[in-house]
Amino acid sequence: MRIEGKEYRTIWFDEQNQSVKIIDQTKLPHKFVIKDLKTYQDAVVAIKDMEVRGAPLIGATAAYGIVLAIKENNSLEFIKKSSEELVNSRPTAINLQWAIHRMNNKLSIIEKDNLLNTALKEAKEICNEDEKFCENIGINGLNIIEEIYNKKKDTVNILTHCNAGWLATINWGTATSPIYHAHKKNIPVHVWVDETRPRNQGANLTSYELNEEGINNTIIADNTGGILMQRGQVDMCIVGTDRTLSNGDVCNKIGTYLKALAAHDNNIPFYVALPSSTIDWDLKNSKDIPIEERNSNELSNVEGVDEKGNINKILIYPKKSKSLNLAFDVTPAKYITALITEKGLCDASEQGLKKLFNR
Amino acid sequence: MRIEGKEYRTIWFDEQNQSVKIIDQTKLPHKFVIKDLKTYQDAVVAIKDMEVRGAPLIGATAAYGIVLAIKENNSLEFIKKSSEELVNSRPTAINLQWAIHRMNNKLSIIEKDNLLNTALKEAKEICNEDEKFCENIGINGLNIIEEIYNKKKDTVNILTHCNAGWLATINWGTATSPIYHAHKKNIPVHVWVDETRPRNQGANLTSYELNEEGINNTIIADNTGGILMQRGQVDMCIVGTDRTLSNGDVCNKIGTYLKALAAHDNNIPFYVALPSSTIDWDLKNSKDIPIEERNSNELSNVEGVDEKGNINKILIYPKKSKSLNLAFDVTPAKYITALITEKGLCDASEQGLKKLFNR
Repeated sequence: MRIEGKEYRTIWFDEQNQSVKIIDQTKLPHKFVIKDLKTYQDAVVAIKDMEVRGAPLIGATAAYGIVLAIKENNSLEFIKKSSEELVNSRPTAINLQWAIHRMNNKLSIIEKDNLLNTALKEAKEICNEDEKFCENIGINGLNIIEEIYNKKKDTVNILTHCNAGWLATINWGTATSPIYHAHKKNIPVHVWVDETRPRNQGANLTSYELNEEGINNTIIADNTGGILMQRGQVDMCIVGTDRTLSNGDVCNKIGTYLKALAAHDNNIPFYVALPSSTIDWDLKNSKDIPIEERNSNELSNVEGVDEKGNINKILIYPKKSKSLNLAFDVTPAKYITALITEKGLCDASEQGLKKLFNR
Repeated sequence: MRIEGKEYRTIWFDEQNQSVKIIDQTKLPHKFVIKDLKTYQDAVVAIKDMEVRGAPLIGATAAYGIVLAIKENNSLEFIKKSSEELVNSRPTAINLQWAIHRMNNKLSIIEKDNLLNTALKEAKEICNEDEKFCENIGINGLNIIEEIYNKKKDTVNILTHCNAGWLATINWGTATSPIYHAHKKNIPVHVWVDETRPRNQGANLTSYELNEEGINNTIIADNTGGILMQRGQVDMCIVGTDRTLSNGDVCNKIGTYLKALAAHDNNIPFYVALPSSTIDWDLKNSKDIPIEERNSNELSNVEGVDEKGNINKILIYPKKSKSLNLAFDVTPAKYITALITEKGLCDASEQGLKKLFNR
């Protein structure tokens, strides 16, 4: 998608430099910085520090991390070590495990001399596939928006939480893909963007990328969605997911659950958009999902632009106060109207998912 | 209550200077500043700019505003004009109207020469009464905390939203009063403090005042309460209210509704603490409550302390983005376990309120 009119993907291999290029998302929206990853440790840091984030994109970054590891040392031992570090770089999104497994499966039958080329091909394939899946999610989700528009004959108001935009994937995004597709079809849409504390990815990334694509959007505090729904100012909600259990429970950015409750209370449809790579077919109980606890500084210190135009970080809490920074919560399947996947829509249930994915 | 070990109320009349003293709450937690209000316009500005906030405290400030008006000009016309400006300084909390009506009722039968003394006496009486009401709320709410403690025999975890602390009242607070009473009785309590975007009164005021009273507390993003409840880490919720309808619906700081939904979904009791001055006996439909929309700069610009120790304001949103700043939402009575008032507990219902207040 576009930034200042120019088309980008979130990650790509730079053939000339033999390095992996990413958009450093910790610098957005105030600065647009492209960063080079030269070693697998660079990839680990990029994931840990959230220079890249979003379940599909961290999966893709981990895949490229394996490429960078092999470039450095193509011994089995080194690949194993780097794989472990990459898998452990963040705990909640399942895509990390998924991408590393896929890479290792592919590499396990390849001769040493071909490892690098095969790995690079597979990492690119993961990216291309994700892009295609996200595009299909958009086509499938577009129908929902179009149906609302055909009834309402007025702007469709869509609430989203965090960033499940193209910046969280390779392109198109998950939750945003139906929105981009609606916009391209000239269906008038307006997006309520949850700020998404503590890291404000809604404001910093979703509103930013919607602005760059010319889509009408308004940032709101995370507290605001409830009353907008009570007032009839939200037609549908659509969010992404970091891990989807086979029973349809969805683990996503903290606060998603609260919006699902409000949507349920106000009879507003609540959709979750996902590529199948975020499905965890093994875990049965959402209580067993490891919920990442991040540094509390992410809550108490906020970055922005001061009056002189300099980027500055400030402490916003009382000095004596302590804080807790949990990154995800779980939305029970019963509050989800449907899952929007690359294969089509299905119920957020074991039956729905198994039928759609022939399992 | 205490700040740096010294006892304060939030507002008082300075006999020597014949002015009204307030704690400028826009400066907290980074600076403790006592401010002089010398004219009724000072009181209007203090309410509008939220130097004072919280339904009971803005009621008391408006009452003192009438005193300052009379000091300037004790004509009926001037008192009427200043009353109107004070009532209109903020729209949602009912206490403003309540306090101004009470002052005007009292003054309507008083001779001109006695207006000032009578007004001052009545404003002080409003403060003393609020303090007493809040103390009683504490005694009544203490029973609830004690009961949980007697069952659990471990720290009682209480979630609160925004600041319904002593800083929102004259003393004790509404939601915090039971907590302070429990602490004084050596019942171990821990408070989950919702940050409360956009103005962060939870972090800036509630955590601050709990720190100063030595009460264990942790600030969380507004998004976090849901998963804490799912995990069993919240024993009860208690919040304040800016306007309570006679049917038990509660209008309070935006985001309250979302926490009430989560509490309901997890069978956690959700209490609202209020002095009777926040009850609107007239309005029948919560949709008719005027919901204040404040300047969107309160969302997009955040104040804090930079690395050099200077107070700095930064823009945290993309420059092109727009935002919407609604200040309150409505929690339907059905999600409220009980109302805690100065007269005791009651159901959040017309029957419950009318019985308790003999109406």
